Amino acid sequence: MKMLSPNRLSLNTATVKEQWNFRECVEGCLRHGFGGIAPWRDKLHEVGIGEGVRMIKDSGLTVTGLVRGGWYTAEGALTDSVLDDNRYAVDEAVAIGAECVVMVVGGLPEGSKEILGAREIVTKGLSLTLDYARTVDMKIAIEPLHPMYAADRACVNTLRQTLDICDQLGPGIGAAVDVYHVWWDPEIHEQIERAGKDRLMAFHICDWLVPTRDMLTDRGMMGDGVIDISGFRALVENGGFNGLSEVEIFSKQNWWKRDADEVLKTITERARAC
Amino acid sequence: MKMLSPNRLSLNTATVKEQWNFRECVEGCLRHGFGGIAPWRDKLHEVGIGEGVRMIKDSGLTVTGLVRGGWYTAEGALTDSVLDDNRYAVDEAVAIGAECVVMVVGGLPEGSKEILGAREIVTKGLSLTLDYARTVDMKIAIEPLHPMYAADRACVNTLRQTLDICDQLGPGIGAAVDVYHVWWDPEIHEQIERAGKDRLMAFHICDWLVPTRDMLTDRGMMGDGVIDISGFRALVENGGFNGLSEVEIFSKQNWWKRDADEVLKTITERARAC
Repeated sequence: MKMLSPNRLSLNTATVKEQWNFRECVEGCLRHGFGGIAPWRDKLHEVGIGEGVRMIKDSGLTVTGLVRGGWYTAEGALTDSVLDDNRYAVDEAVAIGAECVVMVVGGLPEGSKEILGAREIVTKGLSLTLDYARTVDMKIAIEPLHPMYAADRACVNTLRQTLDICDQLGPGIGAAVDVYHVWWDPEIHEQIERAGKDRLMAFHICDWLVPTRDMLTDRGMMGDGVIDISGFRALVENGGFNGLSEVEIFSKQNWWKRDADEVLKTITERARAC
Repeated sequence: MKMLSPNRLSLNTATVKEQWNFRECVEGCLRHGFGGIAPWRDKLHEVGIGEGVRMIKDSGLTVTGLVRGGWYTAEGALTDSVLDDNRYAVDEAVAIGAECVVMVVGGLPEGSKEILGAREIVTKGLSLTLDYARTVDMKIAIEPLHPMYAADRACVNTLRQTLDICDQLGPGIGAAVDVYHVWWDPEIHEQIERAGKDRLMAFHICDWLVPTRDMLTDRGMMGDGVIDISGFRALVENGGFNGLSEVEIFSKQNWWKRDADEVLKTITERARAC
Protein backbone atom coordinates (compact mmCIF):
# COMPACT_ATOMS: atom_id res chain seq x y z
CA MET A 1 0.00 0.00 0.00
CA LYS A 2 1.41 3.30 -1.16
CA MET A 3 1.14 6.28 1.20
CA LEU A 4 0.55 9.76 -0.12
CA SER A 5 1.83 12.59 2.07
CA PRO A 6 -0.13 15.89 1.91
CA ASN A 7 2.48 17.58 -0.26
CA ARG A 8 1.65 15.00 -2.94
CA LEU A 9 -1.99 16.15 -2.94
CA SER A 10 -3.75 18.91 -4.83
CA LEU A 11 -7.08 20.39 -3.78
CA ASN A 12 -9.64 20.75 -6.53
CA THR A 13 -11.64 23.72 -5.30
CA ALA A 14 -14.96 21.98 -6.05
CA THR A 15 -14.29 19.79 -3.02
CA VAL A 16 -15.01 22.73 -0.69
CA LYS A 17 -16.90 24.94 -3.10
CA GLU A 18 -19.81 25.47 -0.71
CA GLN A 19 -17.58 26.49 2.20
CA TRP A 20 -14.60 28.47 0.92
CA ASN A 21 -13.79 31.25 -1.52
CA PHE A 22 -10.57 31.09 -3.50
CA ARG A 23 -8.44 32.83 -0.87
CA GLU A 24 -9.66 30.44 1.80
CA CYS A 25 -8.89 27.50 -0.51
CA VAL A 26 -5.30 28.68 -0.98
CA GLU A 27 -4.82 29.33 2.73
CA GLY A 28 -6.43 25.99 3.59
CA CYS A 29 -4.06 24.17 1.25
CA LEU A 30 -1.08 25.78 2.96
CA ARG A 31 -2.43 25.12 6.45
CA HIS A 32 -2.89 21.41 5.71
CA GLY A 33 0.37 21.04 3.79
CA PHE A 34 -1.13 20.36 0.36
CA GLY A 35 1.32 20.59 -2.52
CA GLY A 36 -1.13 21.91 -5.08
CA ILE A 37 -4.45 23.36 -6.02
CA ALA A 38 -6.77 23.08 -9.04
CA PRO A 39 -9.04 26.11 -9.29
CA TRP A 40 -12.42 26.10 -10.92
CA ARG A 41 -12.77 29.11 -13.16
CA ASP A 42 -15.84 30.48 -11.37
CA LYS A 43 -13.95 30.51 -8.05
CA LEU A 44 -11.06 32.25 -9.74
CA HIS A 45 -13.32 34.80 -11.44
CA GLU A 46 -14.91 35.70 -8.10
CA VAL A 47 -11.59 36.93 -6.78
CA GLY A 48 -10.37 38.22 -10.15
CA ILE A 49 -7.62 36.70 -12.27
CA GLY A 50 -4.98 39.24 -11.25
CA GLU A 51 -5.53 38.72 -7.57
CA GLY A 52 -5.81 34.97 -8.07
CA VAL A 53 -2.48 34.89 -9.85
CA ARG A 54 -0.84 36.81 -6.98
CA MET A 55 -2.28 34.48 -4.36
CA ILE A 56 -1.08 31.41 -6.22
CA LYS A 57 2.43 32.81 -6.80
CA ASP A 58 2.72 33.81 -3.15
CA SER A 59 1.52 30.42 -2.01
CA GLY A 60 4.06 28.42 -3.94
CA LEU A 61 1.37 25.84 -4.68
CA THR A 62 1.58 23.78 -7.84
CA VAL A 63 -1.48 24.30 -10.07
CA THR A 64 -2.39 20.83 -11.27
CA GLY A 65 -5.01 22.08 -13.67
CA LEU A 66 -7.50 24.78 -14.49
CA VAL A 67 -11.06 23.49 -14.36
CA ARG A 68 -12.49 23.70 -16.97
CA GLY A 69 -12.74 24.28 -20.67
CA GLY A 70 -14.75 22.32 -23.20
CA TRP A 71 -18.56 22.29 -23.60
CA TYR A 72 -18.06 22.41 -27.35
CA THR A 73 -21.59 21.17 -28.04
CA ALA A 74 -23.34 23.63 -25.72
CA GLU A 75 -24.58 25.76 -28.60
CA GLY A 76 -25.03 22.89 -31.05
CA ALA A 77 -22.04 23.93 -33.15
CA LEU A 78 -18.61 25.52 -32.76
CA THR A 79 -19.73 29.11 -32.32
CA ASP A 80 -17.28 31.95 -31.78
CA SER A 81 -18.43 32.29 -28.19
CA VAL A 82 -17.67 28.63 -27.44
CA LEU A 83 -14.25 28.82 -29.09
CA ASP A 84 -13.44 32.19 -27.52
CA ASP A 85 -14.30 30.89 -24.09
CA ASN A 86 -11.88 28.03 -24.58
CA ARG A 87 -9.14 30.45 -25.63
CA TYR A 88 -9.81 32.46 -22.48
CA ALA A 89 -9.50 29.28 -20.46
CA VAL A 90 -6.11 28.62 -22.05
CA ASP A 91 -5.02 32.20 -21.31
CA GLU A 92 -6.15 31.92 -17.71
CA ALA A 93 -4.31 28.63 -17.35
CA VAL A 94 -1.15 30.29 -18.62
CA ALA A 95 -1.66 33.20 -16.21
CA ILE A 96 -1.93 30.96 -13.16
CA GLY A 97 0.84 28.64 -14.31
CA ALA A 98 -1.43 25.60 -14.54
CA GLU A 99 -0.02 22.30 -15.74
CA CYS A 100 -3.01 21.87 -18.07
CA VAL A 101 -6.53 22.97 -18.90
CA VAL A 102 -9.01 20.24 -18.03
CA MET A 103 -11.64 19.70 -20.71
CA VAL A 104 -15.18 18.56 -20.04
CA VAL A 105 -16.06 18.30 -23.68
CA GLY A 106 -19.86 18.55 -23.67
CA GLY A 107 -22.66 16.08 -24.34
CA LEU A 108 -25.37 15.93 -26.98
CA PRO A 109 -26.56 19.22 -28.42
CA GLU A 110 -30.08 20.15 -27.28
CA GLY A 111 -32.63 17.89 -28.98
CA SER A 112 -30.02 15.73 -30.70
CA LYS A 113 -29.77 11.93 -30.65
CA GLU A 114 -26.58 11.89 -32.70
CA ILE A 115 -23.74 11.06 -30.40
CA LEU A 116 -21.37 10.42 -33.31
CA GLY A 117 -22.10 13.93 -34.56
CA ALA A 118 -21.46 15.35 -31.09
CA ARG A 119 -18.12 13.57 -31.02
CA GLU A 120 -17.17 15.14 -34.34
CA ILE A 121 -17.97 18.62 -33.04
CA VAL A 122 -15.93 17.94 -29.92
CA THR A 123 -12.92 16.63 -31.80
CA LYS A 124 -12.93 19.63 -34.11
CA GLY A 125 -13.29 22.00 -31.15
CA LEU A 126 -10.43 20.37 -29.29
CA SER A 127 -8.29 20.64 -32.40
CA LEU A 128 -8.92 24.39 -32.66
CA THR A 129 -8.26 25.00 -28.96
CA LEU A 130 -5.13 22.89 -29.19
CA ASP A 131 -3.86 24.96 -32.13
CA TYR A 132 -4.07 28.01 -29.93
CA ALA A 133 -2.77 26.31 -26.78
CA ARG A 134 0.38 25.23 -28.60
CA THR A 135 1.21 28.84 -29.38
CA VAL A 136 1.27 29.63 -25.65
CA ASP A 137 2.72 26.31 -24.55
CA MET A 138 -0.31 25.16 -22.54
CA LYS A 139 -1.37 21.51 -22.38
CA ILE A 140 -4.93 20.33 -23.00
CA ALA A 141 -6.19 17.46 -20.84
CA ILE A 142 -9.39 15.76 -21.96
CA GLU A 143 -11.26 14.31 -19.00
CA PRO A 144 -13.21 11.27 -20.13
CA LEU A 145 -16.37 11.32 -18.03
CA HIS A 146 -18.30 8.33 -16.76
CA PRO A 147 -20.75 7.04 -19.39
CA MET A 148 -23.68 8.16 -17.22
CA TYR A 149 -22.77 11.72 -18.28
CA ALA A 150 -22.63 10.98 -22.02
CA ALA A 151 -25.88 12.77 -22.80
CA ASP A 152 -25.50 15.95 -20.81
CA ARG A 153 -21.85 16.57 -19.92
CA ALA A 154 -19.30 14.75 -22.02
CA CYS A 155 -19.57 12.42 -24.99
CA VAL A 156 -15.97 11.31 -24.44
CA ASN A 157 -16.40 8.46 -22.00
CA THR A 158 -13.43 6.13 -22.01
CA LEU A 159 -9.67 6.48 -21.91
CA ARG A 160 -9.39 4.48 -25.15
CA GLN A 161 -11.64 7.00 -26.89
CA THR A 162 -9.68 9.88 -25.38
CA LEU A 163 -6.38 8.48 -26.59
CA ASP A 164 -7.79 7.83 -30.06
CA ILE A 165 -8.63 11.55 -30.23
CA CYS A 166 -5.16 12.43 -28.92
CA ASP A 167 -3.51 10.22 -31.55
CA GLN A 168 -5.53 12.03 -34.18
CA LEU A 169 -4.60 15.51 -32.90
CA GLY A 170 -0.93 15.03 -32.08
CA PRO A 171 1.26 16.39 -29.28
CA GLY A 172 0.15 18.77 -26.51
CA ILE A 173 -3.11 17.00 -25.71
CA GLY A 174 -3.69 14.17 -23.26
CA ALA A 175 -5.94 12.84 -20.54
CA ALA A 176 -7.02 13.81 -17.05
CA VAL A 177 -7.71 10.43 -15.46
CA ASP A 178 -10.27 10.58 -12.67
CA VAL A 179 -10.75 7.27 -10.87
CA TYR A 180 -14.46 8.05 -10.44
CA HIS A 181 -14.99 8.05 -14.18
CA VAL A 182 -12.79 5.13 -15.20
CA TRP A 183 -12.64 2.66 -12.31
CA TRP A 184 -15.16 0.28 -13.93
CA ASP A 185 -13.44 0.15 -17.35
CA PRO A 186 -12.31 -3.38 -18.28
CA GLU A 187 -9.58 -1.87 -20.48
CA ILE A 188 -8.25 0.71 -18.07
CA HIS A 189 -4.98 -1.08 -17.29
CA GLU A 190 -3.89 -1.34 -20.91
CA GLN A 191 -5.16 2.12 -21.80
CA ILE A 192 -3.22 3.78 -18.96
CA GLU A 193 -0.14 1.93 -20.16
CA ARG A 194 -0.89 3.06 -23.71
CA ALA A 195 -1.28 6.68 -22.56
CA GLY A 196 2.18 6.84 -21.07
CA LYS A 197 3.99 9.86 -19.71
CA ASP A 198 3.13 12.28 -22.52
CA ARG A 199 -0.62 11.72 -22.40
CA LEU A 200 -1.14 11.33 -18.63
CA MET A 201 -1.57 14.95 -17.61
CA ALA A 202 -3.62 14.80 -14.42
CA PHE A 203 -4.82 12.25 -11.89
CA HIS A 204 -8.00 12.88 -9.90
CA ILE A 205 -9.17 10.92 -6.89
CA CYS A 206 -12.34 10.42 -4.85
CA ASP A 207 -14.45 7.28 -4.38
CA TRP A 208 -17.54 5.54 -5.78
CA LEU A 209 -20.14 5.04 -3.06
CA VAL A 210 -22.54 2.10 -2.87
CA PRO A 211 -25.28 3.08 -3.11
CA THR A 212 -24.72 6.27 -5.10
CA ARG A 213 -27.76 8.43 -4.33
CA ASP A 214 -27.23 11.16 -6.90
CA MET A 215 -25.58 10.93 -10.29
CA LEU A 216 -23.66 14.18 -9.90
CA THR A 217 -23.19 15.16 -6.28
CA ASP A 218 -22.70 11.96 -4.31
CA ARG A 219 -19.02 11.21 -4.71
CA GLY A 220 -17.24 9.62 -1.80
CA MET A 221 -14.16 10.41 0.26
CA MET A 222 -11.28 8.09 -0.55
CA GLY A 223 -11.77 4.88 1.41
CA ASP A 224 -15.54 5.15 1.73
CA GLY A 225 -16.30 3.44 -1.56
CA VAL A 226 -15.24 0.61 -3.83
CA ILE A 227 -12.38 2.06 -5.87
CA ASP A 228 -8.91 0.60 -5.44
CA ILE A 229 -7.29 4.05 -5.37
CA SER A 230 -3.79 2.96 -4.42
CA GLY A 231 -3.95 0.45 -7.25
CA PHE A 232 -4.82 3.23 -9.69
CA ARG A 233 -2.08 5.48 -8.32
CA ALA A 234 0.40 2.67 -8.93
CA LEU A 235 -0.95 2.20 -12.46
CA VAL A 236 -0.53 5.83 -13.48
CA GLU A 237 2.92 5.96 -11.89
CA ASN A 238 3.92 2.87 -13.82
CA GLY A 239 2.54 4.66 -16.86
CA GLY A 240 4.98 7.52 -16.21
CA PHE A 241 2.84 10.03 -14.33
CA ASN A 242 4.55 11.57 -11.34
CA GLY A 243 2.35 14.59 -10.62
CA LEU A 244 0.14 15.27 -7.63
CA SER A 245 -3.09 13.44 -6.87
CA GLU A 246 -5.90 15.96 -7.21
CA VAL A 247 -8.84 15.49 -4.87
CA GLU A 248 -12.20 16.31 -6.42
CA ILE A 249 -15.26 15.37 -4.36
CA PHE A 250 -18.78 16.59 -5.19
CA SER A 251 -20.82 15.77 -2.11
CA LYS A 252 -24.00 17.70 -1.48
CA GLN A 253 -25.26 15.49 1.35
CA ASN A 254 -22.00 15.05 3.21
CA TRP A 255 -18.65 16.77 2.62
CA TRP A 256 -20.05 20.05 1.31
CA LYS A 257 -21.95 20.34 4.60
CA ARG A 258 -18.93 19.88 6.84
CA ASP A 259 -16.36 22.30 8.13
CA ALA A 260 -13.81 22.65 5.33
CA ASP A 261 -10.83 22.18 7.63
CA GLU A 262 -12.33 18.87 8.70
CA VAL A 263 -12.66 17.94 5.03
CA LEU A 264 -8.99 18.70 4.30
CA LYS A 265 -7.86 16.94 7.46
CA THR A 266 -9.83 13.86 6.44
CA ILE A 267 -8.35 13.98 2.95
CA THR A 268 -4.80 14.00 4.30
CA GLU A 269 -5.57 11.12 6.66
CA ARG A 270 -7.20 9.03 3.95
CA ALA A 271 -4.40 9.76 1.49
CA ARG A 272 -1.88 8.45 3.98
CA ALA A 273 -3.92 5.25 4.21
CA CYS A 274 -4.31 4.75 0.47
CA MET B 1 -36.87 5.05 -40.46
CA LYS B 2 -37.79 1.47 -39.72
CA MET B 3 -41.25 0.79 -38.32
CA LEU B 4 -41.84 -1.97 -35.82
CA SER B 5 -45.31 -3.46 -35.83
CA PRO B 6 -46.59 -4.80 -32.48
CA ASN B 7 -46.00 -8.42 -33.47
CA ARG B 8 -42.28 -7.57 -33.63
CA LEU B 9 -42.35 -6.50 -29.98
CA SER B 10 -41.92 -8.46 -26.78
CA LEU B 11 -43.09 -7.24 -23.39
CA ASN B 12 -40.57 -7.55 -20.59
CA THR B 13 -42.85 -7.96 -17.58
CA ALA B 14 -40.84 -5.43 -15.55
CA THR B 15 -42.38 -2.71 -17.71
CA VAL B 16 -45.75 -3.21 -16.00
CA LYS B 17 -44.57 -4.97 -12.86
CA GLU B 18 -46.45 -2.64 -10.53
CA GLN B 19 -49.75 -3.00 -12.40
CA TRP B 20 -50.12 -6.57 -13.69
CA ASN B 21 -49.61 -10.13 -12.56
CA PHE B 22 -48.32 -12.69 -15.04
CA ARG B 23 -51.75 -13.65 -16.38
CA GLU B 24 -52.59 -10.01 -17.00
CA CYS B 25 -49.25 -9.55 -18.79
CA VAL B 26 -49.97 -12.47 -21.13
CA GLU B 27 -53.52 -11.27 -21.80
CA GLY B 28 -52.29 -7.70 -22.30
CA CYS B 29 -49.73 -8.85 -24.85
CA LEU B 30 -52.43 -10.63 -26.83
CA ARG B 31 -54.85 -7.70 -26.59
CA HIS B 32 -52.25 -5.29 -27.97
CA GLY B 33 -50.90 -7.66 -30.59
CA PHE B 34 -47.42 -8.17 -29.11
CA GLY B 35 -45.48 -11.05 -30.58
CA GLY B 36 -43.62 -12.00 -27.44
CA ILE B 37 -43.10 -11.79 -23.71
CA ALA B 38 -40.07 -11.92 -21.41
CA PRO B 39 -41.08 -12.98 -17.91
CA TRP B 40 -39.20 -12.06 -14.78
CA ARG B 41 -38.81 -15.09 -12.61
CA ASP B 42 -40.60 -13.56 -9.63
CA LYS B 43 -43.70 -12.87 -11.74
CA LEU B 44 -43.58 -16.41 -13.01
CA HIS B 45 -43.12 -17.88 -9.53
CA GLU B 46 -46.17 -16.00 -8.27
CA VAL B 47 -48.40 -17.89 -10.67
CA GLY B 48 -46.39 -21.11 -10.49
CA ILE B 49 -44.21 -22.55 -13.24
CA GLY B 50 -46.76 -25.16 -14.34
CA GLU B 51 -49.53 -22.63 -14.75
CA GLY B 52 -47.12 -20.14 -16.35
CA VAL B 53 -46.06 -22.72 -18.91
CA ARG B 54 -49.72 -23.45 -19.78
CA MET B 55 -50.53 -19.75 -20.18
CA ILE B 56 -47.57 -19.19 -22.47
CA LYS B 57 -48.28 -22.27 -24.62
CA ASP B 58 -51.95 -21.26 -24.94
CA SER B 59 -50.99 -17.70 -25.86
CA GLY B 60 -48.68 -18.61 -28.70
CA LEU B 61 -46.34 -15.81 -27.61
CA THR B 62 -42.63 -16.10 -28.31
CA VAL B 63 -40.58 -16.00 -25.10
CA THR B 64 -37.66 -13.74 -25.90
CA GLY B 65 -35.88 -14.47 -22.64
CA LEU B 66 -36.22 -15.50 -19.04
CA VAL B 67 -35.13 -12.71 -16.71
CA ARG B 68 -32.86 -13.42 -14.96
CA GLY B 69 -29.98 -15.58 -13.84
CA GLY B 70 -26.54 -14.49 -12.74
CA TRP B 71 -25.65 -12.70 -9.47
CA TYR B 72 -22.61 -14.95 -9.21
CA THR B 73 -20.88 -12.62 -6.75
CA ALA B 74 -23.84 -12.25 -4.40
CA GLU B 75 -22.32 -14.54 -1.80
CA GLY B 76 -18.72 -13.56 -2.48
CA ALA B 77 -17.92 -16.89 -4.13
CA LEU B 78 -19.55 -19.55 -6.29
CA THR B 79 -21.60 -21.23 -3.58
CA ASP B 80 -23.88 -24.18 -4.28
CA SER B 81 -26.91 -22.00 -3.75
CA VAL B 82 -25.78 -19.49 -6.37
CA LEU B 83 -24.97 -22.21 -8.88
CA ASP B 84 -28.15 -24.17 -8.11
CA ASP B 85 -30.26 -21.08 -8.62
CA ASN B 86 -28.73 -20.58 -12.05
CA ARG B 87 -29.46 -24.20 -12.96
CA TYR B 88 -33.07 -23.66 -11.86
CA ALA B 89 -33.20 -20.59 -14.09
CA VAL B 90 -32.01 -22.69 -17.02
CA ASP B 91 -34.62 -25.36 -16.25
CA GLU B 92 -37.37 -22.74 -16.02
CA ALA B 93 -36.25 -21.23 -19.32
CA VAL B 94 -36.49 -24.65 -20.93
CA ALA B 95 -39.94 -25.19 -19.41
CA ILE B 96 -41.34 -21.97 -20.82
CA GLY B 97 -39.56 -22.36 -24.16
CA ALA B 98 -37.48 -19.20 -23.75
CA GLU B 99 -34.97 -18.25 -26.43
CA CYS B 100 -32.34 -17.61 -23.72
CA VAL B 101 -31.71 -16.98 -20.05
CA VAL B 102 -30.67 -13.36 -19.50
CA MET B 103 -27.76 -13.00 -17.10
CA VAL B 104 -27.21 -10.05 -14.81
CA VAL B 105 -23.88 -11.27 -13.58
CA GLY B 106 -23.45 -9.48 -10.25
CA GLY B 107 -21.21 -6.68 -9.03
CA LEU B 108 -18.51 -6.52 -6.40
CA PRO B 109 -18.82 -8.91 -3.48
CA GLU B 110 -19.74 -7.17 -0.22
CA GLY B 111 -16.79 -5.16 1.06
CA SER B 112 -14.60 -5.88 -1.95
CA LYS B 113 -12.72 -3.37 -4.10
CA GLU B 114 -11.44 -6.04 -6.47
CA ILE B 115 -13.37 -5.75 -9.68
CA LEU B 116 -10.92 -8.00 -11.50
CA GLY B 117 -11.57 -10.69 -8.91
CA ALA B 118 -15.32 -10.22 -9.31
CA ARG B 119 -14.95 -10.68 -13.05
CA GLU B 120 -13.08 -13.93 -12.51
CA ILE B 121 -15.86 -15.26 -10.28
CA VAL B 122 -18.45 -14.26 -12.86
CA THR B 123 -16.62 -15.87 -15.77
CA LYS B 124 -16.19 -19.11 -13.86
CA GLY B 125 -19.87 -19.05 -12.83
CA LEU B 126 -21.03 -18.44 -16.39
CA SER B 127 -18.84 -21.31 -17.54
CA LEU B 128 -20.45 -23.71 -15.06
CA THR B 129 -23.99 -22.59 -15.91
CA LEU B 130 -23.17 -22.86 -19.60
CA ASP B 131 -21.92 -26.43 -19.13
CA TYR B 132 -25.33 -27.30 -17.76
CA ALA B 133 -27.31 -25.21 -20.24
CA ARG B 134 -25.67 -27.01 -23.16
CA THR B 135 -26.98 -30.34 -21.89
CA VAL B 136 -30.56 -29.03 -22.14
CA ASP B 137 -30.00 -26.92 -25.25
CA MET B 138 -30.66 -23.54 -23.61
CA LYS B 139 -28.77 -20.40 -24.59
CA ILE B 140 -27.12 -18.06 -22.08
CA ALA B 141 -27.29 -14.33 -22.82
CA ILE B 142 -25.00 -12.07 -20.80
CA GLU B 143 -26.48 -8.60 -20.44
CA PRO B 144 -23.69 -6.06 -20.16
CA LEU B 145 -25.03 -3.40 -17.81
CA HIS B 146 -24.28 0.30 -17.92
CA PRO B 147 -21.03 1.12 -16.07
CA MET B 148 -23.01 2.95 -13.37
CA TYR B 149 -24.07 -0.53 -12.15
CA ALA B 150 -20.56 -1.99 -12.05
CA ALA B 151 -20.35 -1.96 -8.26
CA ASP B 152 -23.72 -3.33 -7.28
CA ARG B 153 -25.33 -5.18 -10.20
CA ALA B 154 -22.99 -6.30 -12.93
CA CYS B 155 -19.24 -6.07 -13.40
CA VAL B 156 -19.65 -6.87 -17.10
CA ASN B 157 -20.19 -3.43 -18.59
CA THR B 158 -19.42 -3.37 -22.29
CA LEU B 159 -20.23 -5.51 -25.29
CA ARG B 160 -16.51 -5.92 -26.01
CA GLN B 161 -16.00 -7.38 -22.54
CA THR B 162 -19.05 -9.60 -22.99
CA LEU B 163 -17.78 -10.95 -26.28
CA ASP B 164 -14.32 -11.54 -24.85
CA ILE B 165 -15.96 -13.76 -22.23
CA CYS B 166 -18.02 -15.49 -24.93
CA ASP B 167 -14.91 -16.14 -27.01
CA GLN B 168 -13.32 -17.69 -23.95
CA LEU B 169 -16.32 -19.93 -23.18
CA GLY B 170 -17.31 -21.07 -26.65
CA PRO B 171 -20.69 -21.72 -28.27
CA GLY B 172 -24.08 -21.38 -26.59
CA ILE B 173 -23.38 -18.06 -24.87
CA GLY B 174 -23.89 -14.56 -26.22
CA ALA B 175 -25.20 -11.10 -25.43
CA ALA B 176 -28.49 -9.45 -24.60
CA VAL B 177 -27.99 -5.95 -26.00
CA ASP B 178 -30.06 -3.31 -24.21
CA VAL B 179 -29.81 0.12 -25.79
CA TYR B 180 -30.04 1.72 -22.34
CA HIS B 181 -26.79 0.09 -21.27
CA VAL B 182 -24.75 0.46 -24.44
CA TRP B 183 -25.95 3.56 -26.29
CA TRP B 184 -22.97 5.67 -25.13
CA ASP B 185 -20.27 3.13 -26.08
CA PRO B 186 -17.83 4.52 -28.68
CA GLU B 187 -17.14 0.95 -29.82
CA ILE B 188 -20.71 -0.29 -30.05
CA HIS B 189 -20.92 -0.35 -33.85
CA GLU B 190 -17.89 -2.55 -34.32
CA GLN B 191 -18.74 -4.75 -31.35
CA ILE B 192 -22.28 -5.45 -32.60
CA GLU B 193 -20.76 -6.37 -35.94
CA ARG B 194 -18.23 -8.57 -34.15
CA ALA B 195 -21.01 -10.27 -32.17
CA GLY B 196 -22.85 -11.42 -35.26
CA LYS B 197 -25.81 -13.74 -35.46
CA ASP B 198 -24.56 -16.40 -33.04
CA ARG B 199 -23.83 -14.01 -30.19
CA LEU B 200 -26.73 -11.56 -30.58
CA MET B 201 -29.39 -13.32 -28.54
CA ALA B 202 -31.73 -10.54 -27.41
CA PHE B 203 -32.37 -6.88 -28.10
CA HIS B 204 -33.92 -4.67 -25.41
CA ILE B 205 -35.29 -1.18 -25.92
CA CYS B 206 -36.29 1.84 -23.82
CA ASP B 207 -34.76 5.33 -23.73
CA TRP B 208 -32.24 7.41 -21.77
CA LEU B 209 -33.90 10.48 -20.27
CA VAL B 210 -32.19 13.83 -19.77
CA PRO B 211 -32.09 14.44 -16.91
CA THR B 212 -32.14 10.95 -15.43
CA ARG B 213 -33.46 11.40 -11.92
CA ASP B 214 -32.78 7.94 -10.55
CA MET B 215 -30.02 5.53 -11.50
CA LEU B 216 -32.30 2.49 -11.52
CA THR B 217 -35.94 3.41 -12.01
CA ASP B 218 -36.02 6.37 -14.37
CA ARG B 219 -35.84 4.81 -17.80
CA GLY B 220 -37.75 6.45 -20.59
CA MET B 221 -40.33 5.36 -23.14
CA MET B 222 -38.88 5.09 -26.63
CA GLY B 223 -38.81 8.54 -28.16
CA ASP B 224 -38.67 10.47 -24.89
CA GLY B 225 -34.89 10.37 -24.57
CA VAL B 226 -31.67 10.63 -26.54
CA ILE B 227 -31.11 7.12 -27.88
CA ASP B 228 -31.25 6.55 -31.63
CA ILE B 229 -33.32 3.38 -31.25
CA SER B 230 -34.06 2.80 -34.92
CA GLY B 231 -30.34 3.16 -35.60
CA PHE B 232 -29.59 0.47 -33.05
CA ARG B 233 -32.31 -1.80 -34.43
CA ALA B 234 -30.70 -1.45 -37.87
CA LEU B 235 -27.28 -2.21 -36.38
CA VAL B 236 -28.35 -5.47 -34.72
CA GLU B 237 -30.27 -6.53 -37.83
CA ASN B 238 -27.20 -5.88 -39.94
CA GLY B 239 -25.35 -7.95 -37.37
CA GLY B 240 -27.71 -10.85 -38.06
CA PHE B 241 -30.28 -10.55 -35.29
CA ASN B 242 -33.85 -10.97 -36.44
CA GLY B 243 -35.68 -11.56 -33.16
CA LEU B 244 -38.24 -9.36 -31.46
CA SER B 245 -37.48 -6.04 -29.78
CA GLU B 246 -38.07 -6.52 -26.06
CA VAL B 247 -39.38 -3.48 -24.21
CA GLU B 248 -38.01 -3.11 -20.69
CA ILE B 249 -38.83 0.17 -18.93
CA PHE B 250 -38.24 0.72 -15.20
CA SER B 251 -40.13 3.89 -14.40
CA LYS B 252 -41.19 4.51 -10.83
CA GLN B 253 -42.28 8.12 -11.35
CA ASN B 254 -44.08 7.69 -14.63
CA TRP B 255 -44.96 4.47 -16.49
CA TRP B 256 -45.33 2.26 -13.42
CA LYS B 257 -47.97 4.70 -12.21
CA ARG B 258 -50.10 4.62 -15.37
CA ASP B 259 -52.81 2.27 -16.52
CA ALA B 260 -50.98 -0.70 -18.04
CA ASP B 261 -53.13 -0.75 -21.18
CA GLU B 262 -52.11 2.87 -21.76
CA VAL B 263 -48.48 1.80 -21.36
CA LEU B 264 -48.77 -0.98 -23.94
CA LYS B 265 -50.71 1.25 -26.31
CA THR B 266 -47.98 3.89 -26.05
CA ILE B 267 -45.30 1.27 -26.67
CA THR B 268 -46.97 0.11 -29.87
CA GLU B 269 -47.38 3.71 -31.08
CA ARG B 270 -43.78 4.60 -30.32
CA ALA B 271 -42.48 1.42 -31.91
CA ARG B 272 -44.27 2.29 -35.12
CA ALA B 273 -42.52 5.67 -35.04
CA CYS B 274 -39.07 4.30 -34.35
